[in-house]
Amino acid sequence: MGERLSGGTTGAASRPRLAPAPLPSFPMPSFSFQCPPGTRDFYPQDLLRKRYIEKLWRDTSIRHGFEEIDGPTFEHTDLYTVKSGEGIVSEIFGVFSGKDEAGVKEMAAKLAAGSGAMAPYALRPEFTPTLARMYAARAAQLPKPAKWFWMQNCFRAERPQRGRLREFGQWNCDVIGEGSHATDVEVTSCCTDVLASTGLTHLDLQIRLSHRDAIDHVLHRLGVPDEHRDSARSLLDARTKLGERQFIERASPLGLSETGVGVLLDLFRNRRKAQPGAVASLLDCATKAGAVAEQGVPTEWGVLAAIQDEVATTPWHEWMWFDLSIVRGLAYYTGMVFEVIAEGERAIAGGGRYDNLIETFGGPPTPACGFGMGDVVLGNILQDRGLMPEGRDLLEALSRSAASLRPDVFVISNGTPEADAALRPLVARLRRGVESRAWLDRADRKPWQADRYSVPPLHARYSYKVTKNIGKLLQDAAAQHARYAAILEGGERATLKNLDTREERKDVPIDALAAAVCARP
Amino acid sequence: MGERLSGGTTGAASRPRLAPAPLPSFPMPSFSFQCPPGTRDFYPQDLLRKRYIEKLWRDTSIRHGFEEIDGPTFEHTDLYTVKSGEGIVSEIFGVFSGKDEAGVKEMAAKLAAGSGAMAPYALRPEFTPTLARMYAARAAQLPKPAKWFWMQNCFRAERPQRGRLREFGQWNCDVIGEGSHATDVEVTSCCTDVLASTGLTHLDLQIRLSHRDAIDHVLHRLGVPDEHRDSARSLLDARTKLGERQFIERASPLGLSETGVGVLLDLFRNRRKAQPGAVASLLDCATKAGAVAEQGVPTEWGVLAAIQDEVATTPWHEWMWFDLSIVRGLAYYTGMVFEVIAEGERAIAGGGRYDNLIETFGGPPTPACGFGMGDVVLGNILQDRGLMPEGRDLLEALSRSAASLRPDVFVISNGTPEADAALRPLVARLRRGVESRAWLDRADRKPWQADRYSVPPLHARYSYKVTKNIGKLLQDAAAQHARYAAILEGGERATLKNLDTREERKDVPIDALAAAVCARP
Repeated sequence: MGERLSGGTTGAASRPRLAPAPLPSFPMPSFSFQCPPGTRDFYPQDLLRKRYIEKLWRDTSIRHGFEEIDGPTFEHTDLYTVKSGEGIVSEIFGVFSGKDEAGVKEMAAKLAAGSGAMAPYALRPEFTPTLARMYAARAAQLPKPAKWFWMQNCFRAERPQRGRLREFGQWNCDVIGEGSHATDVEVTSCCTDVLASTGLTHLDLQIRLSHRDAIDHVLHRLGVPDEHRDSARSLLDARTKLGERQFIERASPLGLSETGVGVLLDLFRNRRKAQPGAVASLLDCATKAGAVAEQGVPTEWGVLAAIQDEVATTPWHEWMWFDLSIVRGLAYYTGMVFEVIAEGERAIAGGGRYDNLIETFGGPPTPACGFGMGDVVLGNILQDRGLMPEGRDLLEALSRSAASLRPDVFVISNGTPEADAALRPLVARLRRGVESRAWLDRADRKPWQADRYSVPPLHARYSYKVTKNIGKLLQDAAAQHARYAAILEGGERATLKNLDTREERKDVPIDALAAAVCARP
Repeated sequence: MGERLSGGTTGAASRPRLAPAPLPSFPMPSFSFQCPPGTRDFYPQDLLRKRYIEKLWRDTSIRHGFEEIDGPTFEHTDLYTVKSGEGIVSEIFGVFSGKDEAGVKEMAAKLAAGSGAMAPYALRPEFTPTLARMYAARAAQLPKPAKWFWMQNCFRAERPQRGRLREFGQWNCDVIGEGSHATDVEVTSCCTDVLASTGLTHLDLQIRLSHRDAIDHVLHRLGVPDEHRDSARSLLDARTKLGERQFIERASPLGLSETGVGVLLDLFRNRRKAQPGAVASLLDCATKAGAVAEQGVPTEWGVLAAIQDEVATTPWHEWMWFDLSIVRGLAYYTGMVFEVIAEGERAIAGGGRYDNLIETFGGPPTPACGFGMGDVVLGNILQDRGLMPEGRDLLEALSRSAASLRPDVFVISNGTPEADAALRPLVARLRRGVESRAWLDRADRKPWQADRYSVPPLHARYSYKVTKNIGKLLQDAAAQHARYAAILEGGERATLKNLDTREERKDVPIDALAAAVCARP
């Protein structure tokens, strides 16, 4: 019985119980129960470990300017059958109230007819449909973009095994109402920031980026007709579970010849670190192999190139790779997609752009991008690598100050090209913090130690608006209750305003901004 | 559509939806969904308010030495049918996996037979059965007492209305393995402490204590035979929903004459503040009315008297009342029971002693005592009385340091009667903190202001063991990672040991202990 981290005791797949029949009145004979298979009992030590992961999730979300939301644990079943795709629908737990007689009758009739047991409600197998429903319901009043995070449990009726349970913790971050490649990078950066804060490094895992349209273009070029595109994508997503022979056999009826499969697999092996030139070189290979049209670079490759340039300005460029084999199982993705991969484990996280989903749920056309990360695979990895604190260390790590819900600093460009270019890289650095020399020199260095940062990670925000009206942006900063506004005067220096006291310091070097903000009164 | 606090948008009881049928492939027409009736969508501002309540719950639990646990969101249905009582079982949401063909077939057969729709699993309507199952499974290895808290959602298929939803937040605190009246008082104190921290006072609400056996004794004296005892208790619990006439009519077949009902209702009206003499005077009235035997005071009245004396030493004596009309609906209570009542609202919280439940779930005989508090009624009350912070205040309140998971101080008696008597009152005061003069003098005083406490509430623990071996108790303090141990040398002074640095200060007046502990290095 796996008693791994991130997990307390897992219910065994079988269900050994004594004396099952309920008895009418007290006193009763003794008997014992286990938790349902694939769910967990968290005794105090088990739960502290889960809370440790959740604290990293929460603090990182807040520092990246995400606000927390929540929805019901169960939803109308139709919310999932509409758009999540076959894979998820087959794993839904049905929910019904015995008091809802009409609903139960309808369900009983369906069950009797053997037509797929659909209850009126379903335990959420994922959160994105709820988020899309919520955004759609209030799109007119909500900010653009809305940056939302969510942390609760999800439920899937899968066979329990390592890294996969029937109830698991999940963290989502989504930016809704912004379609820029900068948003794609901000979302993947937030995901990477959490992983770095656990003590994992770019040597332990990779953030692998791709683009749905790039894959579709390749499939089209290799002969897959439109009507088989979805099936071909599903086949690609299941690729690692199949042998090469089996893969070729299943690919053939979808229009992919053995040669086509070869081209595809070559392309998939051709992973590139996301540094200058990576996309061009990947595109060059793909074109030579005939997987991309010679004339006119397709738009999605332009998006990948823009992502590549943006990634270069973040603290995360060592972590990010381009990998066209990343397809993602969910049906609703439309653009950039990514997965976080540690060798030999299930994906730690995954996400991407889903620009049509809000509209599907009755909202206006709204671009959106986000990701989800579970607690089970990450917990296993941290536990295995000694990256999970224990005892007093764990209590202290969990008692340490949380990220401030008031933004520590709201960064504004003065409108010059130098300031514009410096804005997002500065925000990313402020959110990251600076690890201290003393800590880096420690032989017994651990990620949860109190002396890790000389400049702590900050809650930094900026405006997604294109306005250059600084007065208006300062109003936004105040409305969001930021403590400081930093106005970039070019690429090197900033004016720092304390929005509580109205004090102002001019000409602060941008490398000194964080320290100035941290010197709280 | 109630958009109250503690709650975002509530799904209306009806279910207006457009275009219900799922469509097979993209693109699809637009339609809109609502959350299921009685559940809530929490947009960022809504969720911050729920998190505010949860922060008070969590911090107070930790300072009282409770450790957090968690269990599955759904359990085997039998876990509830066994012991929670009819009321809860009728409100269960059934859960099943479509992949579990045998289970679905069995359920379909039961549904077709119309024999109460019981699914293999149930969404938890309450947490206590899970807690009892978990304790029973590991009783031999777990500390005695185990002090556990839990904060998640519960689910009941009730008709949604003010103060009552189908999915709601719930906080439980339980002491398992200790049967003393001091534990009963510690549990009710923790519950009261949270309410005081919200800014509510003893003028706003009352903690009303009673004892199951005292009620049973009265029922027996008034002519209710043993076989009708449970029904009579249920009738009492439902009393306020019935007219007096209706109550008398239903009481008669249970053996309660109209005279008996009169005696009972007199007793119920006879509420007493829990101060010295209260229990004796209440007992006197009951005896004169013939509701209690003249000869030999029944044990349960002795328990109530001991609770009365203990309450007098806590900061909460103004809040506590004895009220024999408190019965509690759940079937498993065995001793002290209590409810928190604000005029005109559903009960805010309730709990009591359940000394047989762990054994029922296969554990050894284990006394236990605890309570639950929901987020809905409390949220409504805070919102209505201006006790819910907004905007910047709310962000700051939520960003303030959490209670330390390492105990700030572990208090030990040196074994003299004076020290023994001073121990628990001191612990209760340390957990409470001291409100500052400056804050108390503020005209715009609000409970969430940063200057509220001159001495902040501390995480204080003590040992429940009867040993006088101070060396052993210091080991316990160190094993629990306490920062300080305070050894009471009589009722006035203590020796304070810093367990990290081994520094020691002798002869510290007990009123100066908290300040000394707060002066962290």
